[in-house]
Amino acid sequence: MSDAANVLARLAQLAKLGAYGAGLDRPLASPQERAARDLFAGWARAAGFALRQDAVGNVFARREGTRPGLKPILTGSHLDTVKTGGAYDGAYGVVGAICALELLEARGAATAHPIEAVAWVGEEGSRFPLGCLGSSVFAGISRADDALAIVGDDGVSLRDALAASDGGLLPGVPMRADRDVAAYLELHVEQGPILEEAGVSLGVVTAIFGQRRLRATVTGVSGHAGTVPMRMRADALCAASELVLELDRAARTEADAVATVGRMLVEPNGTNVVPGRVTFSLDLRAPDEASLDAIERAFRDAVADVSRRRHVTVDVEAFERRKPTPMTPALRAAIHRVAAAMGREAVDCPSGAGHDAMSLGTIVPTAMIFVPSIGGRSHVAEERTADADVELGVEALAAALVEVDATLGENGRG
Amino acid sequence: MSDAANVLARLAQLAKLGAYGAGLDRPLASPQERAARDLFAGWARAAGFALRQDAVGNVFARREGTRPGLKPILTGSHLDTVKTGGAYDGAYGVVGAICALELLEARGAATAHPIEAVAWVGEEGSRFPLGCLGSSVFAGISRADDALAIVGDDGVSLRDALAASDGGLLPGVPMRADRDVAAYLELHVEQGPILEEAGVSLGVVTAIFGQRRLRATVTGVSGHAGTVPMRMRADALCAASELVLELDRAARTEADAVATVGRMLVEPNGTNVVPGRVTFSLDLRAPDEASLDAIERAFRDAVADVSRRRHVTVDVEAFERRKPTPMTPALRAAIHRVAAAMGREAVDCPSGAGHDAMSLGTIVPTAMIFVPSIGGRSHVAEERTADADVELGVEALAAALVEVDATLGENGRG
Repeated sequence: MSDAANVLARLAQLAKLGAYGAGLDRPLASPQERAARDLFAGWARAAGFALRQDAVGNVFARREGTRPGLKPILTGSHLDTVKTGGAYDGAYGVVGAICALELLEARGAATAHPIEAVAWVGEEGSRFPLGCLGSSVFAGISRADDALAIVGDDGVSLRDALAASDGGLLPGVPMRADRDVAAYLELHVEQGPILEEAGVSLGVVTAIFGQRRLRATVTGVSGHAGTVPMRMRADALCAASELVLELDRAARTEADAVATVGRMLVEPNGTNVVPGRVTFSLDLRAPDEASLDAIERAFRDAVADVSRRRHVTVDVEAFERRKPTPMTPALRAAIHRVAAAMGREAVDCPSGAGHDAMSLGTIVPTAMIFVPSIGGRSHVAEERTADADVELGVEALAAALVEVDATLGENGRG
Repeated sequence: MSDAANVLARLAQLAKLGAYGAGLDRPLASPQERAARDLFAGWARAAGFALRQDAVGNVFARREGTRPGLKPILTGSHLDTVKTGGAYDGAYGVVGAICALELLEARGAATAHPIEAVAWVGEEGSRFPLGCLGSSVFAGISRADDALAIVGDDGVSLRDALAASDGGLLPGVPMRADRDVAAYLELHVEQGPILEEAGVSLGVVTAIFGQRRLRATVTGVSGHAGTVPMRMRADALCAASELVLELDRAARTEADAVATVGRMLVEPNGTNVVPGRVTFSLDLRAPDEASLDAIERAFRDAVADVSRRRHVTVDVEAFERRKPTPMTPALRAAIHRVAAAMGREAVDCPSGAGHDAMSLGTIVPTAMIFVPSIGGRSHVAEERTADADVELGVEALAAALVEVDATLGENGRG
């Protein structure tokens, strides 16, 4: 088995932890997620990499560099999954990171900077409701004490869950005191259809989309479906339908932007009753704030217009706002050089999904490498990436780590 | 208390039977519905009217006519309610009928035809799933044996429910063998806002709307709200929204027609997932088949167009089709004459809701008198009609019975 092929065997090992239906359920600090961290630690120990963890459970495996005093380049992703998730999202970047370090070791490729493979905890926020929990704490966006105080959907705090023997911190692994880091690279499956459609196996992320989440409540007047004339109606579903279509239209006018109404509840939801209230979610994502502003403005303009024409009131509540995270141009260029040297095409593409790279991107030069998702599918049991692409991504990551090491040296960073 | 005012006291008595939340729940063959039939029988006996009932529980109270051999003019409505229903829907037409007969009696107004006040059973179909159950059987649209075999939502057949002592047939009331009837008049609350908006207290129904019920299932492709570009989406909710609006538009182009999407289910209904499937109900009603045809055709044309443009499939299932029931012109004219003689304005209006008059309309001359519903509200606890309008409707019904008795005589009917 080649070192790159090793990644497939390890993904298969991880896929046995947390079987749930046809897919996986591996929430933070569950026995199966702890077992995944254990597996990662075992691979690191076997390869001779020094292990550390931090208070929220992030695990780091370090290959030393040649120049003393430099901060490490970090590379990794997360081991937790959504419920009914797949075997690639997150796990691929963690396994790929440790395999890339092993490749460098096997090839005797020295780097000036130390390189650390990292398994971030709780990226999905599926048990403790904070996305990118581990990387947020590491990057100083969230305080460790605040994160540890979060209560999961089973009523247990993260602090208590991490103190338990079945889901907690790894015994015998020293705590990491510093938060030193020079740069961050994350390898991930695309989770979308762009690379597959382009027929290209490597993507260089341009930016992680900014995101706005809103909730709209349309209040009209419920009534008998047979007795209220059309001209006297205040049908909340007709009004909501206009707003759904306006959001769709607005998103299509902004390059690369997406907007989705994924959830809708109709009340009273009777076949013979004019809908009196409709509640729906809005999820806006774009690579730049200007696009998000334009879409939200178009939607709010439509709200004013539709409210007046259809005699309804529309309450719009914005409850989450995340800025776009542009990837670092120098690191993106390094990945493109590596792909060219490998004789492989790589294309720029945005990331519509959130990643731990959003957290690291706020403090250090950061970039991401994507490999294709078959059918663009993710967060489902059928989530797959072709074996050849899985191996290619690890080769590209290993080469990119060397290239970034050199790039940071040239720029006097680290 | 005047005889007309008596109707208010009796409605209040009925409203005590089947209290459910703030409203009423009086399903067919329940103890409370049986108590309502008992009350009706008691009023009839006290007034000296002969009582009969039939195999499904319809109860008839007869005031004899002066000319032997004529078939009776029937007038009435139903005593059952929907769950969380109000005190006027149905009950008003039954109480109004017995009060109208008493008015004729008190005024010594002889009619050639016998006149029967009737309490139809199971109009709402809320326990046994057949609307207008009692009147359908009487009109020969449904067979009594078939109706009695229907199993209610509690697993009990109507036959068994009517054989039980707490919800069944009235003891000591003779069975009606014949189905003789010369004409039918039904007094009812409008259940809509037309009369209130017009500021008129009497409505003469032109036709009971035909109705078509359909179910549409839109199948697109579910996906991650962040990673699937707009141009590659097959969003089932966007497609459904277009169809909702097209139905709304089509209904507005047909006079008096209404169309409603009252129920919609989105799958998987996650805030960050592009909807993969949307199921929704369609309820089309209009006074004529041509309008129903036009609306359904416009909807199906839109289905073809939207399917192609949005890359979805749309399955449309039609599962109920009821023809419009025009009211008899001679009887409508009789009611207008009566209103004019009373010095009251009466307006023609359609009935978007179904009524027992649909059943009787298939076999004999039939008409309906409406009184206003406050705020157009019905099938809710707050269902109300102003006291003066309640009394006016009974006066109009009593006068209309005399007028129709004469009209039928002129036309050689009965």
